[in-house]
Amino acid sequence: MRILHHLPLSPACRKVRLALHEKRIPFELRAERIWERREEFLAMNPAGTVPVLEEENGLVIADSYAICEYLDEAYPDTPLLGRTHAERAEVRRLVAWFDDKFTREVTRNLYFEKQLKRMLGRGNPDAGALRAGYANLKPHIEYLGWLAETRAWLAGSQLSLADLAAAAHLSCLDYIGDIDWSLNDAMKDWYARVKSRPSFRPILGDRVSGLTPPQHYADLDF
Amino acid sequence: MRILHHLPLSPACRKVRLALHEKRIPFELRAERIWERREEFLAMNPAGTVPVLEEENGLVIADSYAICEYLDEAYPDTPLLGRTHAERAEVRRLVAWFDDKFTREVTRNLYFEKQLKRMLGRGNPDAGALRAGYANLKPHIEYLGWLAETRAWLAGSQLSLADLAAAAHLSCLDYIGDIDWSLNDAMKDWYARVKSRPSFRPILGDRVSGLTPPQHYADLDF
Repeated sequence: MRILHHLPLSPACRKVRLALHEKRIPFELRAERIWERREEFLAMNPAGTVPVLEEENGLVIADSYAICEYLDEAYPDTPLLGRTHAERAEVRRLVAWFDDKFTREVTRNLYFEKQLKRMLGRGNPDAGALRAGYANLKPHIEYLGWLAETRAWLAGSQLSLADLAAAAHLSCLDYIGDIDWSLNDAMKDWYARVKSRPSFRPILGDRVSGLTPPQHYADLDF
Repeated sequence: MRILHHLPLSPACRKVRLALHEKRIPFELRAERIWERREEFLAMNPAGTVPVLEEENGLVIADSYAICEYLDEAYPDTPLLGRTHAERAEVRRLVAWFDDKFTREVTRNLYFEKQLKRMLGRGNPDAGALRAGYANLKPHIEYLGWLAETRAWLAGSQLSLADLAAAAHLSCLDYIGDIDWSLNDAMKDWYARVKSRPSFRPILGDRVSGLTPPQHYADLDF
């Protein structure tokens, strides 16, 4: 069986899980405690990060960017990157927006500070980082809301990897109670649509020990 | 004429310039002072970052990941991402290594602290960041050296986007005098081969005002 090495609250891993589910590619999840730096795992991915996809034929693909591009090349049914050059450019621009800009400005400041530090025993969250994360979140929510208001899905008329990347980040922040859904109706409507997809169900079922999500986290009618 | 909006010492822009040259795609460079947040530029790329590629047919592509994937799709001669799934996974893993991990651990701590802060008048470099950057650089140089020693090019038998991404980062650090080439012969030999390619010539000619590179910067026999 195909294996996805992952961590439950990693946005990059959630993006890949959603992509696999949307493409109806069966896989098994294996949680990797990356901080233990297991030798066999480092041999698969010297960067020591998740996600890593192990195909049944032995092909190992490390990094969520490499995995998602591979999935659209190897399993072209249900394309998630768009068809025309313009569509693909827009999907990838938005994937980079979330995986690069949003990660740097928001996810790292909030989720990494609050959850990862706690889990790794690296002390308390840095107050400056939290302040920056909350401040940065606002313009991102506005931009997301604007996209959701003017388009059927974030990158255009079709669901794409851009929606999955964005929803992956938001779902992790939602788990730690950092998203105020009353701030933007268009964003909330869009997220409700993504959240209702069958591909999202396993993600709503994720629980990490010592950290209970707010009640609305798994509620489709939040 | 095709236009690449860029900054001379941006590793992401240099990677795209190298890819365009290797593919013999003609283009014009236009420097964008991104910190001025010019409205016309933000309309092309709301993230406000370079590189942005403007095709002659009006197609605008923002973000170096989106641009490089587009270039290999639209101009498949001289492929830079490899041919088989395994080759492509390896090229993309290494591109992510440099554009994500190396950026976070090294480039941001050294180049952003020393050069960008100065340019933007944001004060002196943070001593802790510089220390972290120099400490992180060492294992990266070892890994680069190991790749260069065991393979013809970083990702395998062919020159690929992995070499261009890595060389783009190293060339920016070399410009500010932060690479000690005596540390690793295999890395130096590999870099000398990339540096000697015609695609690299314009990059060696880059000069930014107020910052002179060390003498060996443009020397092919360094």
